[in-house]
Amino acid sequence: MSDGPPPLLAVADALDRVLRGLAPSQTEICELQDVRGRVLATDIAARLSLPPAAVSAMDGYAIRAADCQAPGASLTRIGESAAGRPWGGSVAAGEAVRIFTGAVLPDGTDTILLQEDASAIDETDGATITVNEVPRAGQFIRPAGLDVTTGDIILTAGTVMSARLIALAISAGHTEVSVWHRPHVGILSTGDELVPPGGTPGPGQIISSNAVYLSSFVAACGAVPVDLGIARDRPGEMLSCVRAAPVPLDLVVTTGGASVGVHDHIVDDLSASGTELGFWKIAMRPGKPLIHGRIDDTPLLGLPGNPVSSAVCANIFLRPAIARLSGGDHRPQMIAARLAIDLKANDRRQDYLRATLEYDPQGQAVVTPARKQDSSMISIYAGANALIVRPPHDEARQAGDMVMVMPLDPLL
Amino acid sequence: MSDGPPPLLAVADALDRVLRGLAPSQTEICELQDVRGRVLATDIAARLSLPPAAVSAMDGYAIRAADCQAPGASLTRIGESAAGRPWGGSVAAGEAVRIFTGAVLPDGTDTILLQEDASAIDETDGATITVNEVPRAGQFIRPAGLDVTTGDIILTAGTVMSARLIALAISAGHTEVSVWHRPHVGILSTGDELVPPGGTPGPGQIISSNAVYLSSFVAACGAVPVDLGIARDRPGEMLSCVRAAPVPLDLVVTTGGASVGVHDHIVDDLSASGTELGFWKIAMRPGKPLIHGRIDDTPLLGLPGNPVSSAVCANIFLRPAIARLSGGDHRPQMIAARLAIDLKANDRRQDYLRATLEYDPQGQAVVTPARKQDSSMISIYAGANALIVRPPHDEARQAGDMVMVMPLDPLL
Repeated sequence: MSDGPPPLLAVADALDRVLRGLAPSQTEICELQDVRGRVLATDIAARLSLPPAAVSAMDGYAIRAADCQAPGASLTRIGESAAGRPWGGSVAAGEAVRIFTGAVLPDGTDTILLQEDASAIDETDGATITVNEVPRAGQFIRPAGLDVTTGDIILTAGTVMSARLIALAISAGHTEVSVWHRPHVGILSTGDELVPPGGTPGPGQIISSNAVYLSSFVAACGAVPVDLGIARDRPGEMLSCVRAAPVPLDLVVTTGGASVGVHDHIVDDLSASGTELGFWKIAMRPGKPLIHGRIDDTPLLGLPGNPVSSAVCANIFLRPAIARLSGGDHRPQMIAARLAIDLKANDRRQDYLRATLEYDPQGQAVVTPARKQDSSMISIYAGANALIVRPPHDEARQAGDMVMVMPLDPLL
Repeated sequence: MSDGPPPLLAVADALDRVLRGLAPSQTEICELQDVRGRVLATDIAARLSLPPAAVSAMDGYAIRAADCQAPGASLTRIGESAAGRPWGGSVAAGEAVRIFTGAVLPDGTDTILLQEDASAIDETDGATITVNEVPRAGQFIRPAGLDVTTGDIILTAGTVMSARLIALAISAGHTEVSVWHRPHVGILSTGDELVPPGGTPGPGQIISSNAVYLSSFVAACGAVPVDLGIARDRPGEMLSCVRAAPVPLDLVVTTGGASVGVHDHIVDDLSASGTELGFWKIAMRPGKPLIHGRIDDTPLLGLPGNPVSSAVCANIFLRPAIARLSGGDHRPQMIAARLAIDLKANDRRQDYLRATLEYDPQGQAVVTPARKQDSSMISIYAGANALIVRPPHDEARQAGDMVMVMPLDPLL
């Protein structure tokens, strides 16, 4: 006789164990235009300074401040400097060069006289320019290297590339960067009760949605999903599905097969294939059972068969696993939010409540748990935009209390 | 003589005008596995109920509550119902069916006796089951249609599809849906000062980063970018680049060509090509000049040539434009946030300050503007995760005041 239920594995411990065996495998050189969402494998140093030379920040005249000490001073226009068409000469006392925003500052000049602070008799060289407002010496000049200086580290290894970071790298002289390989993730459904999408479920059957969900999830996380089909509840079938993968896999994800029922063979298959084997009961809801092991040296993560449990576990375990395999950050982002309604005390499992996260007019995060939390209800999960994360044995909470929330990515 | 500067067009008015001429063009039927990020063209009704029949929510025994009124009651196991393998018979008084989570409730039963609340002599039919804890009548049963009922509208037209919404649609019996066509967006850089990525800038030249930025931006917004190259500052060149597009375009985006310098020919080209022409000075910073018109009946949006101005305008105008062409929502999301530092009074232009948005331990949005707001600094924009939006003539603000913020998408 035991004194209570057997100990459950804490979520954080399970995640640590899942991540421990994972590392990014190899790097590749990619054109910058193709790396949105990819993770940098190396630091990136600027090859160019931005701007490469001092430039004008405004439209006007490049002048010498010493020539413009009083209103009414006059200068002679001797040329023009435009973006892409610098003026190559040198400017002497009493001379001015017409200049436009972004154009290189001509030698000899030190200040921009705004066009609205001057009068020109016409837009030709030789024209007389009259100073109406005395400029501040050095005004409206962007010095060379203001933005970026050659050799500066502008991006560090591990950065997830966005469109704007791509623009920065290109501006600083790069066309390609070293990024981590996109991991290949095999996705295998298991269970006799599953009917492929589009099929007609017979009595007791359900349509298999997990594989398509996980495929879309995996792709949105930046990995390459590999469909391994549906393994029926027969010894060896799961093993043969994985071994039939058309490409080498960095990770295998299964759904189903971990219940206490007598129809599941994943555990036997795993034992037959290899080495470590974890068949974990995790202190979380939904999503208690999780399988962790290796098939022929490929890491395996076995998610629950219930669609909502599977989706929650994908956010908690699979997303960090893919991030680590991709060379990136691997901890789910959490923020605090104010509870909109009361919650009862929690039991010994970490609870992931399907919820709606909003920001009130004062910029305060406010979270409302869905009224029903039945883990069989896909519609509730599909409509949520966040999960409230309640630690084990969390005390009863009242509306207005703070709770921790994991926002769900809009596309996941 | 005028009494002041000429009136500027308000951002909201400019956006209204940009969106007015845009509509999604056509729909297509796509497999659900391919529609992440796409916009539904029609409402979706469930084809199946979920669950299709009443099922057990737990592992245990399907029983008749009338048989289990007192501890010690005994029942005879007559069969087993597992997920995917329902038990086809009918249960009479004194009988029980072994059942697992998700399995169909056998005819004649009305309650689930938890396995931990019963003792079984063994796991075979004919075994005697003893009731240790009296079950509540009807407990642990998920009724048919609990999640979704056939005919329910589960998704509405205009919804952007996520992995979890795809899972819902598949579970409810769908394999494909009608989505709006992905718009084709032509991207054209203009300017003699531009060197293609990887080139070596000569005096006064800069590397063209806007086209790659916009290409990545457009793709992340769900549209198909079409590279139209770089148009040099010669009459007719821009027009011929657009007319050389390899596919029909739903929108043309240009950068550069709208300054007051004398080297720009976009406006002439636009006039030569067609009908309406807007050459707008917008009350915003960065990003004052914006061109709006049509080239041969294709809508055109002309963004500034400055990379930061171009990027800000892409968020303010191009993203909503693509969303509207894609059949989706088209207003930038704004939230309130608490200012971390003081800000001086604003002038007549709506200001978009590059900023860092964070959430404090109390779930309060806090925003810190970058120290430098020079619109030539790509590195500042690249490092920001939000824009503070200050309306024209906004008064001076102090640390702790609320301001409106537009979060920048992590991948844009």
